[in-house]
Amino acid sequence: MDETIQTREISVGVVGLGLMGSSIVAALLLAGHPVKAIAPLPDELADAPERIQSQIRHGEEADLLTQSVAEYMAQLTVSADYSVLSDCQMVLECVTEKIAIKQIVYRKIADVVSSDAIIASNTSAIPISMLQQYVPNPERFLGIHWAEPAYMTRFMEITCGTETSLERANWAFELAHYWKKEPTLLRKDIRGFVTNRLMYAIYREGLHLVENGDASLEDVDKAFRYDAGSWITMMGIFRRMDYTGLQDYPEIFRRLFPLLSNSEQVPKLMQQLVDQQLRGTQSAKGLYDYTEEEAKEWDKAFAVFNKDIYQLAARYPFRTDQRIG
Amino acid sequence: MDETIQTREISVGVVGLGLMGSSIVAALLLAGHPVKAIAPLPDELADAPERIQSQIRHGEEADLLTQSVAEYMAQLTVSADYSVLSDCQMVLECVTEKIAIKQIVYRKIADVVSSDAIIASNTSAIPISMLQQYVPNPERFLGIHWAEPAYMTRFMEITCGTETSLERANWAFELAHYWKKEPTLLRKDIRGFVTNRLMYAIYREGLHLVENGDASLEDVDKAFRYDAGSWITMMGIFRRMDYTGLQDYPEIFRRLFPLLSNSEQVPKLMQQLVDQQLRGTQSAKGLYDYTEEEAKEWDKAFAVFNKDIYQLAARYPFRTDQRIG
Repeated sequence: MDETIQTREISVGVVGLGLMGSSIVAALLLAGHPVKAIAPLPDELADAPERIQSQIRHGEEADLLTQSVAEYMAQLTVSADYSVLSDCQMVLECVTEKIAIKQIVYRKIADVVSSDAIIASNTSAIPISMLQQYVPNPERFLGIHWAEPAYMTRFMEITCGTETSLERANWAFELAHYWKKEPTLLRKDIRGFVTNRLMYAIYREGLHLVENGDASLEDVDKAFRYDAGSWITMMGIFRRMDYTGLQDYPEIFRRLFPLLSNSEQVPKLMQQLVDQQLRGTQSAKGLYDYTEEEAKEWDKAFAVFNKDIYQLAARYPFRTDQRIG
Repeated sequence: MDETIQTREISVGVVGLGLMGSSIVAALLLAGHPVKAIAPLPDELADAPERIQSQIRHGEEADLLTQSVAEYMAQLTVSADYSVLSDCQMVLECVTEKIAIKQIVYRKIADVVSSDAIIASNTSAIPISMLQQYVPNPERFLGIHWAEPAYMTRFMEITCGTETSLERANWAFELAHYWKKEPTLLRKDIRGFVTNRLMYAIYREGLHLVENGDASLEDVDKAFRYDAGSWITMMGIFRRMDYTGLQDYPEIFRRLFPLLSNSEQVPKLMQQLVDQQLRGTQSAKGLYDYTEEEAKEWDKAFAVFNKDIYQLAARYPFRTDQRIG
């Protein structure tokens, strides 16, 4: 890593202060950056400062702070006016997943920042190479995809579009380590990046087993929570293979691959729930049923779990620094 | 659960005292059972008592004991003579994954236990319905698949063959809760049970991305450790979908399913490593390279991690008791 980076000398902009955007602002403040936050919507402008402050307090409970909450908040500017972004070396776009809206936002950002300021999108759905077309000097555009809550997760996907400069991507990759991230750096913007490709392979097989009557929802969840869940946070999948000695895999591949689902169809079970406008814990009804009480408990419980697993994961770094280029 | 179960009144037999068998013996002792352990191999007969004792001490470090180590060990009989199994209500077979050997073992067990004693296999590879053919009174035969280390993991797959009595399977399922397990109970013995079906769907996609040059081994591992790894131990996959509100999934299914690997081939990368007899951390070379020192560190680190995640998972039970029949 470049030891000369001083986050307090690098202003970072964030456009879009919904749940995710606010949480990214909190993460950047905790990392020491001055943050210029643009709230394009009036509601966001009114709510964001308090929300960000409560997220920093949450970070305080998890011992993530090295200054007072007030000192972090003093580094924050919230505005509806894009011109406050003018001194930013990097601006992160976190607005809704609509290309037409993002396009307008990129134009407004590019109008006020220097021509070599990095502009990045938090999109999880739209190809970086496509968004890049709407950005003047597209070599400084890339994907930086965060996980929720941004200030207390180590996951980050940095993704190059076809025109992205590797040098700029590498700078963002190095900077992300100062945000206490363990970023992946994708040279190609494959659909779904890495994580969704892997997760949707599981979802396809899991829903197939349930729709076939081979396993219940609970069976699948238990298998994950108590088998994969007992090692995945430490090892990922390939170090796990190394750890278990490798030799048995080819035979099991041969036996199981032909049995796996290759479906391209949306599973009926999921389509039906969505057609009924069920929203899982948010509506107390989804794949599982919840009492109102249980549905509320999930939010609270996950906030606590998240802190626990964040701290646990930090004790098993096995970091391999990567560079590209 | 049946509150009348007293584990100290139920003798359980274990046949095969390799690493896994010993660890299962330790788990059953910690659960309060008298255990009759059969060591078919002379080496196992010599090594097993000490290995089991050191596993119980490991359990002691994790606060799993309610009696002294000596008191647990007093409940253990280790022998090469199958006749010590005669009073067992359940015998677990943990020998090598060779059908011809298991067949002989089942005959020896059946010769000494009562005709309604449950006989179960720890196999992860051979269909229960196939093994069941070699067991007199096959309705009392089922799969009970443990994870390593058996005394400090909550995962367990209980699997019925086509002739298994649901009533007997349910009894085993209930008993497993006294072993502090969170068992799945499969009514059909699908190949790979649940867990391997799901895991091999990930392995197929992950190796495909790496072989395609779309992502590095490190990228895939980071994606898992820091994304899935930050919630999977609490939620599994379906409760996660409920938690995230469901509505976005059909569209992403539609977009990503057609891009996922449907390969039936053994990935070349894996075949080459196995052909070279590389054994991952066991040979300090595999998908990753390790120094000798690093390879040794993995074992130690995983033992500590395992204790940590076992305790963490226990704080988020969300148990849904299941019954079949």
